[in-house]
Amino acid sequence: MFLTRSEYDRGVNTFSPEGRLFQVEYAIEAIKLGTTAIGVKSKDGVVLVVEKRVTSPLLEPSSIEKIAEVDTHIGVAMSGLTADARTLIEHARVETQQHRFTYNEPMPVESCVQALSDLALRFGEDDDEDGGMSRPFGVALLVAGWQEGEGPVLYHTDPSGMFVQYDAKAIGSGSEGAQTTLQEEYKPELSLKEAEVLALSTLKQVMEEKVTATNVDIACVAPTYHLYTKEEIEEVVSRL
Amino acid sequence: MFLTRSEYDRGVNTFSPEGRLFQVEYAIEAIKLGTTAIGVKSKDGVVLVVEKRVTSPLLEPSSIEKIAEVDTHIGVAMSGLTADARTLIEHARVETQQHRFTYNEPMPVESCVQALSDLALRFGEDDDEDGGMSRPFGVALLVAGWQEGEGPVLYHTDPSGMFVQYDAKAIGSGSEGAQTTLQEEYKPELSLKEAEVLALSTLKQVMEEKVTATNVDIACVAPTYHLYTKEEIEEVVSRL
Amino acid sequence: MFLTRSEYDRGVNTFSPEGRLFQVEYAIEAIKLGTTAIGVKSKDGVVLVVEKRVTSPLLEPSSIEKIAEVDTHIGVAMSGLTADARTLIEHARVETQQHRFTYNEPMPVESCVQALSDLALRFGEDDDEDGGMSRPFGVALLVAGWQEGEGPVLYHTDPSGMFVQYDAKAIGSGSEGAQTTLQEEYKPELSLKEAEVLALSTLKQVMEEKVTATNVDIACVAPTYHLYTKEEIEEVVSRL
Amino acid sequence: MFLTRSEYDRGVNTFSPEGRLFQVEYAIEAIKLGTTAIGVKSKDGVVLVVEKRVTSPLLEPSSIEKIAEVDTHIGVAMSGLTADARTLIEHARVETQQHRFTYNEPMPVESCVQALSDLALRFGEDDDEDGGMSRPFGVALLVAGWQEGEGPVLYHTDPSGMFVQYDAKAIGSGSEGAQTTLQEEYKPELSLKEAEVLALSTLKQVMEEKVTATNVDIACVAPTYHLYTKEEIEEVVSRL
Amino acid sequence: MFLTRSEYDRGVNTFSPEGRLFQVEYAIEAIKLGTTAIGVKSKDGVVLVVEKRVTSPLLEPSSIEKIAEVDTHIGVAMSGLTADARTLIEHARVETQQHRFTYNEPMPVESCVQALSDLALRFGEDDDEDGGMSRPFGVALLVAGWQEGEGPVLYHTDPSGMFVQYDAKAIGSGSEGAQTTLQEEYKPELSLKEAEVLALSTLKQVMEEKVTATNVDIACVAPTYHLYTKEEIEEVVSRL
Amino acid sequence: MFLTRSEYDRGVNTFSPEGRLFQVEYAIEAIKLGTTAIGVKSKDGVVLVVEKRVTSPLLEPSSIEKIAEVDTHIGVAMSGLTADARTLIEHARVETQQHRFTYNEPMPVESCVQALSDLALRFGEDDDEDGGMSRPFGVALLVAGWQEGEGPVLYHTDPSGMFVQYDAKAIGSGSEGAQTTLQEEYKPELSLKEAEVLALSTLKQVMEEKVTATNVDIACVAPTYHLYTKEEIEEVVSRL
Amino acid sequence: MFLTRSEYDRGVNTFSPEGRLFQVEYAIEAIKLGTTAIGVKSKDGVVLVVEKRVTSPLLEPSSIEKIAEVDTHIGVAMSGLTADARTLIEHARVETQQHRFTYNEPMPVESCVQALSDLALRFGEDDDEDGGMSRPFGVALLVAGWQEGEGPVLYHTDPSGMFVQYDAKAIGSGSEGAQTTLQEEYKPELSLKEAEVLALSTLKQVMEEKVTATNVDIACVAPTYHLYTKEEIEEVVSRL
Repeated sequence: MFLTRSEYDRGVNTFSPEGRLFQVEYAIEAIKLGTTAIGVKSKDGVVLVVEKRVTSPLLEPSSIEKIAEVDTHIGVAMSGLTADARTLIEHARVETQQHRFTYNEPMPVESCVQALSDLALRFGEDDDEDGGMSRPFGVALLVAGWQEGEGPVLYHTDPSGMFVQYDAKAIGSGSEGAQTTLQEEYKPELSLKEAEVLALSTLKQVMEEKVTATNVDIACVAPTYHLYTKEEIEEVVSRL
Repeated sequence: MFLTRSEYDRGVNTFSPEGRLFQVEYAIEAIKLGTTAIGVKSKDGVVLVVEKRVTSPLLEPSSIEKIAEVDTHIGVAMSGLTADARTLIEHARVETQQHRFTYNEPMPVESCVQALSDLALRFGEDDDEDGGMSRPFGVALLVAGWQEGEGPVLYHTDPSGMFVQYDAKAIGSGSEGAQTTLQEEYKPELSLKEAEVLALSTLKQVMEEKVTATNVDIACVAPTYHLYTKEEIEEVVSRL
Repeated sequence: MFLTRSEYDRGVNTFSPEGRLFQVEYAIEAIKLGTTAIGVKSKDGVVLVVEKRVTSPLLEPSSIEKIAEVDTHIGVAMSGLTADARTLIEHARVETQQHRFTYNEPMPVESCVQALSDLALRFGEDDDEDGGMSRPFGVALLVAGWQEGEGPVLYHTDPSGMFVQYDAKAIGSGSEGAQTTLQEEYKPELSLKEAEVLALSTLKQVMEEKVTATNVDIACVAPTYHLYTKEEIEEVVSRL
Repeated sequence: MFLTRSEYDRGVNTFSPEGRLFQVEYAIEAIKLGTTAIGVKSKDGVVLVVEKRVTSPLLEPSSIEKIAEVDTHIGVAMSGLTADARTLIEHARVETQQHRFTYNEPMPVESCVQALSDLALRFGEDDDEDGGMSRPFGVALLVAGWQEGEGPVLYHTDPSGMFVQYDAKAIGSGSEGAQTTLQEEYKPELSLKEAEVLALSTLKQVMEEKVTATNVDIACVAPTYHLYTKEEIEEVVSRL
Repeated sequence: MFLTRSEYDRGVNTFSPEGRLFQVEYAIEAIKLGTTAIGVKSKDGVVLVVEKRVTSPLLEPSSIEKIAEVDTHIGVAMSGLTADARTLIEHARVETQQHRFTYNEPMPVESCVQALSDLALRFGEDDDEDGGMSRPFGVALLVAGWQEGEGPVLYHTDPSGMFVQYDAKAIGSGSEGAQTTLQEEYKPELSLKEAEVLALSTLKQVMEEKVTATNVDIACVAPTYHLYTKEEIEEVVSRL
Repeated sequence: MFLTRSEYDRGVNTFSPEGRLFQVEYAIEAIKLGTTAIGVKSKDGVVLVVEKRVTSPLLEPSSIEKIAEVDTHIGVAMSGLTADARTLIEHARVETQQHRFTYNEPMPVESCVQALSDLALRFGEDDDEDGGMSRPFGVALLVAGWQEGEGPVLYHTDPSGMFVQYDAKAIGSGSEGAQTTLQEEYKPELSLKEAEVLALSTLKQVMEEKVTATNVDIACVAPTYHLYTKEEIEEVVSRL
Repeated sequence: MFLTRSEYDRGVNTFSPEGRLFQVEYAIEAIKLGTTAIGVKSKDGVVLVVEKRVTSPLLEPSSIEKIAEVDTHIGVAMSGLTADARTLIEHARVETQQHRFTYNEPMPVESCVQALSDLALRFGEDDDEDGGMSRPFGVALLVAGWQEGEGPVLYHTDPSGMFVQYDAKAIGSGSEGAQTTLQEEYKPELSLKEAEVLALSTLKQVMEEKVTATNVDIACVAPTYHLYTKEEIEEVVSRL
């Protein structure tokens, strides 16, 4: 009676008989091909840790950007198609600046995450003025922020336009194993320093290579965004 | 003579020989994959209860929003694609605010529901200024409201653009069993407190997990929208 | 030489070798899945009667609207996709109000029907400013009106954009049996009261359930539109 | 080497290897499914006669319009998709009124026919401001007119955008037999009264039912458009 | 390795592996289905002769226009889809009038032919402001003109946008035989009267019917466009 | 694993798994069906020679334009679809005139060639204001120019948007054999007269017919564009 | 369950079930068909070396441009579809000039590379105002620049919109072997002269022909862009 699954999966925005949107599910698969990224919330701030695949010794590791600043109180770690992430982050930067300009205050982190998710949802539409795409964005984001009056927050967004808050979350090719570790090890009373160690040691487990200052990046929002220098990364590595 | 059913079901807006629109029917299937939501009308107000799938202990349950406020006298519970619901709810919020601004009175609940349904019907059109989509919205809504001069009202809308009033209604993956229970147990003379118990106990029957303050959300419109705090939910749970 | 029928029937607006437009024919099939609606013209006015499928005892029957007022002198009964009918009726309401505003007189009933049919014909066009659709409208209408200087009139419109006047007409799933009865029983000299009985007794024959005040709606244009209250319906039922 | 015919016939505007446009040919087939219409030119004016399929005794025959006035000196009989004809006629009415407004004289009949044919040719184009369609118009027209300084003229237009003048012409399902009769019986020196009889008696031969005042319509342009009343039709019938 | 020819021939504007554009070639086939048209250049002017298929004795032959005036010094004979030719000729008329208005002189014949060919080339483009089509024009033209300072000229244009000058040229269903005759009989020193006889006698050979004043049309540009009256045609026929 | 080649070759602008654009390659095939054109650079100027296929003795050879002037210092010889070349040349003429108007100097030849190639590259885009096409241009050009301060230059452009400079180059159906001859015979110190002989004798080898003043065209840019008269061509032929 | 790979690979912007974008991967294949290009960063500047395929002795090697200047401090070497590269480079030139105009300073090299990558990402979108394409760009670039305050930088961009910094990088058909050599031989303390030798000797290994001043091009940014003359290339060749 029905066609096999594969007949429904190329329509960018078409339901299958079971009510599924396959292109969105395949975009989520793109993320499973990506490098692992981990976010851990501590009481002092949120730590983001990402793996960088340095495929050649001649490649300059610092030019692989898997963590980016959106505003002074919001940072983002990504997994999946990096180029797609750039469009999303550029959009978030414009939104947060406009918020500051209009209301003279930092944009609430959730509003920023919702703006990102709304853009992700808009694929397949003609209106590409704000970056709408002809396919789903093939990228997941971990959004670390400091919400005035609330403290640190960590959000996860995916290609379906869904977003949700986590205490600790892993995305990318090693996410399954990493998430299990996080679940076992995470404690809400972690300090930022402990969160750094938890995040990096979890990443270490799922990486094939040895963790060094060149193949991972670390950033925190505590309460402002800060991308760790090589020395700071080495200091965290030494604490593992 | 005819092609098999499956040949007609990928055209977003094409009739099959029997006069059916398969993409709309498949969108309705998407709702059957969603979490269960239940609305019960009492003489004092309408209660909305939803299940939340907390897939990880590290996930912040309060960030899963399955119930949302549209205006002070209208609340909405959803089942299906959450991201689609956001577009609909955003549209309803704009409509109700414009009504207040223009007429200086709350928007009639039915007008609000009709605005939601009209938007749902507009998929496949080029005009996406107001959120029109290239596929049907994969979400069903229970709209709880307090209509001035009439009292509490409960509406059900689905992807076909249809809307209808109910005394008690369940949607989502557990809707079939829940609706049977509601039909047996519902009495028009229920108080709000009894409605809370009926809604939550019905939800409990179709949920796989134990009902706790973290995996359900409760809201009421009686006569204004109120989302229950953790303590209030626990109080209702204790009365089951 | 030719493809089988089915190869031509998915193009929204393509002729088959025999000169047929299958999508329009399939939209007409959608009406055969709808509830039955009957219109009967008497010398004092036109009566519209519709079946309502009350699928659950918790459903509020009055919220199923299968009869709608267009203007004080025009009412409409529908069968097929209710949501499609809303678009058509909204269009007709705008047209009739614009006519009153411009000419200070009620819009001629035929002009209103033509406006409805012209909209129905416009599917597949880009210009959707006035509600044009990407597929045919899956709904048939019985338009009851009171034409100044002429008296009561009853029109039937279908998805092909065709419209024609009838003395008595049935549409929807029970239309075939009902139309035969109407042909046998109809007399031009019927009074409004007799027309009510003829319409309702004909509907009764094709309904599976017992006729009650909750599963039928009655309206008349005699000479102004009036939707019967529960009591008035019961009074007609008692006269059967 | 070539695909079978059927592979080329769904492209709305694509040539087959033999240089044929199948969708236009299929639209011409739609006309062969239509009711028969006949036009006869006499020295005093042109007579148009059409068959009306009164499918139910409850249907009001006068509401089936197969003949329409374009301007006081131009009338049109149609066969095929009636709703398509409405678009064409509306276009012709606008054109003739604009001509009167601009030049203060009736539009030449040939100019009006050319305007109709140009619109028919424009299908498949984006520019639908003037009624352009996404498929060929499925209707043929007989255009009867009175050309100042020339007298009566009769044109035939079809979905290909072709138009040509005739002394007497039949279109629709019975056109083949009717045209043979017209060829045998037509004489240029016919009076209007004789033309009425020739047209109606020819129609009679190809109709399955008996000709009555309810199942045919007659109009003439002699020199102004006039649609016959029931009595006038009966008078012509009596002369057969 | 390659698909068969037929797989490439429905794309309106797609190359086959051998570098061919099949839709253009099929449009050229459409011309071979058309009536024959012949142009002959003499030292005094160009003669155009066309066959008219008078399919019914009731058809008014003068309303079949296969020869048309573009400007006082340019005339056009056509073969193929007559309705397509109307669009081209209308375009040429606008171009020649604009040239007169701008430069106060007749448009050079070659410029006019190039304007026609450029329009023919533009099919498949969105920009249809000047008559661009979604398929190639299915018509060939013989353009007869009188070029100031040069004398008579005869051009041939086809659906590929190609144009070229001839002393004598035949197009349409009988073109092959006719061209052979023209090649044998043509002499540059022909007078206009001799050219009339050569053109008409050549046409006569390829026509199935007897040549009469009703089934051919003759025009000349010598040096101004003149469409022959019935009497003038009969005079030429008598000279054969 | 892969589809056969033919499945990728109809998408106008789609890569095959090996990274090839088949429609561009097929457009290059279109050129191999065209007449041969040869360009030879001498120290005094560039000579262009083209074959003309005079398919009928009644055809006026001078109306076959395979060589065209772009500006006084730039001439172009073409092979492939002549009508496509017209669009390119018209574009180049506008560009060179605009350059003269803006900078009061002749446009550098390379800038002109780049403008031609950029247009060739733009197929498949919506923006057709400057002549962009829905398929690649099926034409190759030899652009002969005189660059102030540099002297004679000869460019070759093809449908891929590539352009490159040559001392001597042949395009079209006979290009393979001709290029071999040119490679053997070409010497940089050629005079213009010797270049004429080399170009024409090379063309002669690959033409099936005898070279005459009617079936070839010759032009040079030395340093201004000049199209040879019949007498001048005969003079070159006599020197072979 | 799934279709074979080939079914997903023609949709320009569609995910396969594994989350891959095949058209982008195929565009990357196009680069493997291109000529080899190598970039080497030294402490004094960046050297770019490219192979030129001189397919005919009559071809002017200097007209094959595989290295281009973007601004005085940025140069680009390309591999793949040269015509695509032109569009990207033209875009980069406009961006760098606008930056100078707005900020009165050279554009940061990374900003320029990001502008190139953003354009590469935008394929498949309607908005082609800035050169957006209907397919991915089939070209990879090595961007050599001199960043004020940082010194020499070398970027690699590919059709996916990804960009990354390298000390030394090879692209094109010989990239695999060349990259291995670079990895073995590269030392950060190289002088510009040593970098020239490393780049050219690496290219020499992967070229089929002997390296001469006509079949390679060399450029450096040290700190300004300079394209080597024939003599300078010969000087480098002599040092190998």
